[in-house]
Amino acid sequence: MAEKRRAPIVGRYTQEEVALATRNSGMPLEALRYDLTPAGLHYLLIHFDIPALETASWMLRIEGLASRPRDFGLEELRRMPSRTVRMTMECAGNGRGQTSPRYPSMPWMEEGVSTAEWTGVSLSILLNESKIKPSVREIVFHGADRGFDRGIEHSYSRSLTPEEAMRDDVVLAYAMNGAPLLPQHGAPLRLVVPDWYGMASVKWLERIEAIDGAFDGVQQALSYHFRSVAGEKGMPCTRMRVNSLMVPPGIPDYFGRRRTVEAGMVELLGRAWSGDGEVKRVEVAVDGAWQDAKLEASAGPHAWRRWTARWLAAKGAHELRCRATDASGAVQPLEPPWDVTGFGNNAAQKVEVTVR
Amino acid sequence: MAEKRRAPIVGRYTQEEVALATRNSGMPLEALRYDLTPAGLHYLLIHFDIPALETASWMLRIEGLASRPRDFGLEELRRMPSRTVRMTMECAGNGRGQTSPRYPSMPWMEEGVSTAEWTGVSLSILLNESKIKPSVREIVFHGADRGFDRGIEHSYSRSLTPEEAMRDDVVLAYAMNGAPLLPQHGAPLRLVVPDWYGMASVKWLERIEAIDGAFDGVQQALSYHFRSVAGEKGMPCTRMRVNSLMVPPGIPDYFGRRRTVEAGMVELLGRAWSGDGEVKRVEVAVDGAWQDAKLEASAGPHAWRRWTARWLAAKGAHELRCRATDASGAVQPLEPPWDVTGFGNNAAQKVEVTVR
Repeated sequence: MAEKRRAPIVGRYTQEEVALATRNSGMPLEALRYDLTPAGLHYLLIHFDIPALETASWMLRIEGLASRPRDFGLEELRRMPSRTVRMTMECAGNGRGQTSPRYPSMPWMEEGVSTAEWTGVSLSILLNESKIKPSVREIVFHGADRGFDRGIEHSYSRSLTPEEAMRDDVVLAYAMNGAPLLPQHGAPLRLVVPDWYGMASVKWLERIEAIDGAFDGVQQALSYHFRSVAGEKGMPCTRMRVNSLMVPPGIPDYFGRRRTVEAGMVELLGRAWSGDGEVKRVEVAVDGAWQDAKLEASAGPHAWRRWTARWLAAKGAHELRCRATDASGAVQPLEPPWDVTGFGNNAAQKVEVTVR
Repeated sequence: MAEKRRAPIVGRYTQEEVALATRNSGMPLEALRYDLTPAGLHYLLIHFDIPALETASWMLRIEGLASRPRDFGLEELRRMPSRTVRMTMECAGNGRGQTSPRYPSMPWMEEGVSTAEWTGVSLSILLNESKIKPSVREIVFHGADRGFDRGIEHSYSRSLTPEEAMRDDVVLAYAMNGAPLLPQHGAPLRLVVPDWYGMASVKWLERIEAIDGAFDGVQQALSYHFRSVAGEKGMPCTRMRVNSLMVPPGIPDYFGRRRTVEAGMVELLGRAWSGDGEVKRVEVAVDGAWQDAKLEASAGPHAWRRWTARWLAAKGAHELRCRATDASGAVQPLEPPWDVTGFGNNAAQKVEVTVR
């Protein structure tokens, strides 16, 4: 594969970046108030175009190293035992737009995260039924969306090891928050992989392929790696790093989004999540002084956790931040961790406010 | 009012512009394939934050110069005769991001347009029931969303003349495409004003006020005016200028979105609309040679019109454009019309393709 690398961008943003930001959708941060992100507010990162798939003629094919390869129609999948998973999904590139130099891609500030309930069939049921062979090393998920990235034409495809793929909560979803899957979220069927960054949850699924090697597709072998220098092999992006966000308090300026808050007691509200274990602690800083926030009960093993903190706001300009710690002991850094392609930026959020 | 003007931006985009592009949502152009834009793909321009309104306690107040001012709850409105209007809505700032210098605001490329069916109560029914007085010159619509723009704190409010407000198809909508209105689209109730740019369709409606003067709110008197030089009074933005877009053919590059198309016969598909009368003609240009597209039947007085064109694509690089003409005789220009604040850019779309 003749990979074409894109030169990093320094400083202000290019028209290509803005075109991606306009096409794709972030979750406005005030929507952190919802346990489940309402329809149309869940973030969207669509690499190519939303394909025009006909549910009536659509089939999911399971093929490759399987003793019983076969096709499944949507109605058959709907008749199988269903499973609903509540999960927080974050784009691996979330926060990329806050860095410079940065890789030419979607310039997320911090809105590339949301939580939904996905309903479908456990992938393990289909893999068992297809009798995947013991020699299988990876399960590849092929989407219907096609285009060029890094100079190479391909359909969007990703793989998982059989061990990851067989987790109960890995689901082939045909519904989202109790409603039929929308076209932009992968209808008629998508994969959802809890705890992992969103790139693993392949949309517009058409084909599942069991192979005995390592999948070398563009989105698996070239993109979605942590790299400290361009061109190195790097480490694959997998589970979401610990992260947290707050609802910016007060009211915004339309342009610049700076917040104005009334002096007095302010209830801060946010969410924290991690793909590496339960969120164990959230801290909030006002002008650099950290204190513990109040963590609410877990909303499930794969969902963000709600937190609150009280702040006696005094007149003047202030900087609010929040940071979470997960069960693995990982804490959010205060500055963006360096990555060539801008993946995994879980630096603590900053919210600038004026109290009056 | 002490208006603060923002300095124009030249060339590349600022972080404030990208933050707005990430927060707000455009309609990906492949969604021009849908007669009605599916939930979650309708464009969104949210000036401040999505307010957290409780439907149970929410009331719409009609007040000011009315003989029977009163409050309406949502259930009462739902029991009144309902009306469904199919309408195309476009942001007045659509296309702003293609210009330089440009006003610091949402840097739309061309995705700030969509079509939905809105269901609710004709505004005229409520105005008649409230017995608006003959001295009324404007009806003001106050939303619950609040913040700063141009240095002035305000809730989002806009006005219409009684004549415009009494049009049958001006609706107070509680449903969109047959489903309850979503929070980001103005739940529990919003105004929809067919044929006008989107700024007239006030979301999160709380109060309708009949006044005997000209409303001087920020979004009415300062913003949403066509101006050739900063500071002049200008002409208010009202009805949508004639405009059209095509689904970019072929497959995209992820970054840059350049299209690759197979040589041979290509079916081009698009939509055209105008707030000033029926679309009468659509033309398509390949490398500057214009020819008529095929117009399909009207989809209603306020909805975009579907069009198709066949193109025998020859290998190489090509530029595709489309432009519409409406019943008033207005034709889309080939270059963006100059406007200080970047409103009303209806220049003919350009799509760069490589045919292989």
